[in-house]
Amino acid sequence: MNFHIMTLFPEMIMGSLSSSITGRASDKGYISFNAINIRDFSKDKHHKVDDYTYGGGAGMLMQAQPIYDCYKSIEQDILDKGCKSPRVIYVTPQGSVFNQKMAQELASEENLVFLCGHYEGVDERVLEEIVTDYVSIGDYVLTGGELPAMVMIDAISRLVPGVLNNDESAMTESFNNYLLEYPQYSRPEEWMGKKVPPILLSGDHKKVDEWRLEQSVIRTKERRPDLYEKWLAENPPKPEKKKRRKKKAAEPLASEEMANDNTTEDNNIGTIS
Amino acid sequence: MNFHIMTLFPEMIMGSLSSSITGRASDKGYISFNAINIRDFSKDKHHKVDDYTYGGGAGMLMQAQPIYDCYKSIEQDILDKGCKSPRVIYVTPQGSVFNQKMAQELASEENLVFLCGHYEGVDERVLEEIVTDYVSIGDYVLTGGELPAMVMIDAISRLVPGVLNNDESAMTESFNNYLLEYPQYSRPEEWMGKKVPPILLSGDHKKVDEWRLEQSVIRTKERRPDLYEKWLAENPPKPEKKKRRKKKAAEPLASEEMANDNTTEDNNIGTIS
Repeated sequence: MNFHIMTLFPEMIMGSLSSSITGRASDKGYISFNAINIRDFSKDKHHKVDDYTYGGGAGMLMQAQPIYDCYKSIEQDILDKGCKSPRVIYVTPQGSVFNQKMAQELASEENLVFLCGHYEGVDERVLEEIVTDYVSIGDYVLTGGELPAMVMIDAISRLVPGVLNNDESAMTESFNNYLLEYPQYSRPEEWMGKKVPPILLSGDHKKVDEWRLEQSVIRTKERRPDLYEKWLAENPPKPEKKKRRKKKAAEPLASEEMANDNTTEDNNIGTIS
Repeated sequence: MNFHIMTLFPEMIMGSLSSSITGRASDKGYISFNAINIRDFSKDKHHKVDDYTYGGGAGMLMQAQPIYDCYKSIEQDILDKGCKSPRVIYVTPQGSVFNQKMAQELASEENLVFLCGHYEGVDERVLEEIVTDYVSIGDYVLTGGELPAMVMIDAISRLVPGVLNNDESAMTESFNNYLLEYPQYSRPEEWMGKKVPPILLSGDHKKVDEWRLEQSVIRTKERRPDLYEKWLAENPPKPEKKKRRKKKAAEPLASEEMANDNTTEDNNIGTIS
């Protein structure tokens, strides 16, 4: 997977993506990223890339020409390598909200181009001309498109085969089943008077899995009722085999879910790991 | 506003936040950021900060002690300066989803501490001990907490008085009214056969404002029906003064909204500018 990032701050992109897992994946050749300075494509003698907005308004707008020429140069390189014309993602609050499913879909592309806006925004005409996907990482306003582009590149990269090692890739399916992660504990067994829950030390893997799923369900219900509802819709309580109980709550308790569900394999969710 | 970031990759944080608007704001003294390496607080002779997870599972967990000691050191510095004990934000998909309102609320704090997780996650006990806010930037999985912390710091920073200049700060209220931004155009008037909409060249500010609001409503309805519904709930069509029309659509057309609404001031929404 090759990431091409059109930006006014290439050093910010390259500095950040060179760190940590994306940097390691790039060193090993699983992914590549190249930040291209839009300013290099300005035809203005002072390398200006922005101008006032027609109709008035605060701030400056990024002009069409430097962005267009920057893109055409990237596209030509890609076509010269025998690849198809790439998808172009404009990072904007006016886009579809990025999620894990979108990351998975984009991870199958050979090349991805990101356009990072700055100032007040970008001339609409160049967006119409080159952009294939308008994507937002959330409902908040940032000073530029660089950080959201890096967020998307990070989320997509870790789904590219080879980027994560075996241990890490076990968490690839996170957010697929809507549940948040259960609490986790490492050494020592007792820290500041707080003990690891005994069940985790029991060695009984089935019980451990059951406890973790129960904790995930409880936590999701508490912290993200919206995700809990989605999970519940896809994991309705299974009918009981023996009809002993007289009353049944309309909404299943986490512990009831647990008792009825033996498939815990898919219920691990990754943290921001 | 002082940002303190607990991380295993301080160079990633400092490199990125030193760029662009946050870097400028830091140079001018409106904000400060300090990335502290958790590894420096390990008591292990090899500076190890992670270990296996009790109960089994893929990946390594960040241990409690180095994080706790790192936090106590930051807290002591803050208390020594006569400030109150800070809020501590753990960046995690298990948190509340970050939005513009949360950014505004956090922008009033004097100090904010961020904890960036890595590997499989963090020992639950240290989270219970120090974390005040669990925050997620969206429903996707990342390789670490550094990028989301930088996203939050960027969104919060631009709301700190002085950080944005006057032109830019006009956009501070973005996402308050749920509408996405209208299309914008800069010079030249014609580019690749595409002309700037004539109304933007008319000099009639009222008409320009009306056109922009209309475009915002149309675009929001198309791209983010969820936000459109919220906007509609807060901006119900005003009752008509003259009851001439016989029929009225159940749902107002954008153009009807427009004709009934003269307050366009709050309807500008920032792009990721």
